[in-house]
Amino acid sequence: MTLPATVAVDVGGTKIRAGSVIGGVLAHVRSVPTPATAGAQAVLDTIAEATAAVIADTSGSRGAEFAWRIGIGAAGVIDPATGTVVSATDSLPGWAGTDLVSELTARTGLPVRAVNDVHAHALGEAAAGASCGTRSSLLVAAGTGIGGGFITDGHLLTGRNSAAGHVGHVPSAAASGLACPCGGTGHVEAIASGPAILNTYRRLVDASDSPTSTPVAAPVPANTRELAAAASAGDALAVRAFDIGARALGSALGGIANVLSPEAIVVGGGLAAMDEIWWAPLRAAFAAELIPATAGIKLTKAELGQDAALIGAASLWNAEQRETR
Amino acid sequence: MTLPATVAVDVGGTKIRAGSVIGGVLAHVRSVPTPATAGAQAVLDTIAEATAAVIADTSGSRGAEFAWRIGIGAAGVIDPATGTVVSATDSLPGWAGTDLVSELTARTGLPVRAVNDVHAHALGEAAAGASCGTRSSLLVAAGTGIGGGFITDGHLLTGRNSAAGHVGHVPSAAASGLACPCGGTGHVEAIASGPAILNTYRRLVDASDSPTSTPVAAPVPANTRELAAAASAGDALAVRAFDIGARALGSALGGIANVLSPEAIVVGGGLAAMDEIWWAPLRAAFAAELIPATAGIKLTKAELGQDAALIGAASLWNAEQRETR
Repeated sequence: MTLPATVAVDVGGTKIRAGSVIGGVLAHVRSVPTPATAGAQAVLDTIAEATAAVIADTSGSRGAEFAWRIGIGAAGVIDPATGTVVSATDSLPGWAGTDLVSELTARTGLPVRAVNDVHAHALGEAAAGASCGTRSSLLVAAGTGIGGGFITDGHLLTGRNSAAGHVGHVPSAAASGLACPCGGTGHVEAIASGPAILNTYRRLVDASDSPTSTPVAAPVPANTRELAAAASAGDALAVRAFDIGARALGSALGGIANVLSPEAIVVGGGLAAMDEIWWAPLRAAFAAELIPATAGIKLTKAELGQDAALIGAASLWNAEQRETR
Repeated sequence: MTLPATVAVDVGGTKIRAGSVIGGVLAHVRSVPTPATAGAQAVLDTIAEATAAVIADTSGSRGAEFAWRIGIGAAGVIDPATGTVVSATDSLPGWAGTDLVSELTARTGLPVRAVNDVHAHALGEAAAGASCGTRSSLLVAAGTGIGGGFITDGHLLTGRNSAAGHVGHVPSAAASGLACPCGGTGHVEAIASGPAILNTYRRLVDASDSPTSTPVAAPVPANTRELAAAASAGDALAVRAFDIGARALGSALGGIANVLSPEAIVVGGGLAAMDEIWWAPLRAAFAAELIPATAGIKLTKAELGQDAALIGAASLWNAEQRETR
């Protein structure tokens, strides 16, 4: 008798992580660089190689016969019904239009299911993380962008064009007039993402520079991580930039909570790793938007880190899992 | 052999409408005033009397033996799983806490299912109206308040506390600082509802009054209907008030479309009865928020008018219907 086993793969613009999931337990995780500039075929080859390596590692340590299948969480808008990349950003040239299921089945001989990586993240937290056991949950990934995934009664909401979950693209008063990566203006991602918070900081620094001011002694933060360190060290403008972004995101999520009324809202991504400098204004602005009927909903921190997308991708093979449109 | 037949009842703060639904066809509709100030027991008695009258009318005209049941769409937050009124506004004193199922079964001997009236409206448009045949749809009721109901794969999203669908309570830059009926501030309902648009008009009139201006000859509109007539007659400030409200609502709905990516967004309620003075800015502001993946989503007008809630309440008895939380 063979035991069902899944190779879970998280395909991002810079790295590919893969591991085995057997009985809900993730193991043998490996990470390799994504050959993004080499095109989609090279990325698919790398996924297939990582899959073979995970299977070899697992078989070597367990010695059992497994019935393998592949679960993918990948960057881009992915249609889970067909396993095709509907659209993708410039970080993966040629990725749009790729049929993940047939391409990877051709390379591995294994059945394949695929979903967007943030959607996989949401499925993972619901399967084994901060929203485990809830009837409905919203996962918000706050980092370079602001994305999300909504799950109700165990079903991921994919929506028309598999486009559901773009929680970063709701209007925000704080982002008024700011260009958003989507091509629009004024969306919360344009003030609340990591790069947006760095931009806010630069504007604040520019605005505080008077012609007679002395030169700033400390080095100017070059990325969101350095800005977070500056905020922790007491840089008032850095604290203020995170406060502005966190309040804008909290307010937007409060409005979304009034529309979806989920049992849990789980926040992950790079920004969620911050301390109260980011979380306190996020929670305050969120709570201020809630109507009496939704007032008990809490924002909680994601628990599974980068493993969430792997566990979620593997959960595509759970008997009860299917997407809802 | 008996034929299944449903008495559908729409319970509002001012009137109760009831009719028979047999094979999806609504007939024998009657409307009676809601004895709201007399309390919940009087309202329940009136529902039971209207139910009996509808059954008598139907049996008289058809002469057949029917297996009757009752489907209710009622004002207030209703838990469809128990048929209980979770909370209600002052328009129905004592309504909160009422167990609609046991109270009405005790009065009629018939099985009862109940849902919120806006949720019933959404179910009705999805069953036989503007969103019929879609996999997912959002119904927006824009009138005295701004409410909504989201349906995916035939399931109404009720959410935690049955509170899902409060689309009027998302933040809106245009409503910044304005008090919302929910107790919060800055929600789109505070600038886009009928009463809010009338308030905007009054502010515009006040702001345009200079000490040297001549008195306005036309009577000041006393309600949203009169304001709509003034706008149609060319009152520039009335047109502007509707424009401000419609743009705020369109922008909010564009953001919600990016989160839910529904196949259809259907707009009903009193404001939807207006012409392009309201619809043109609504559609323009909506389209401006959409990301490429949601750009094809359209706003369409609800088709069933006040019958939508009756048809939706009856659909609670369809075999495939159940709520999703």
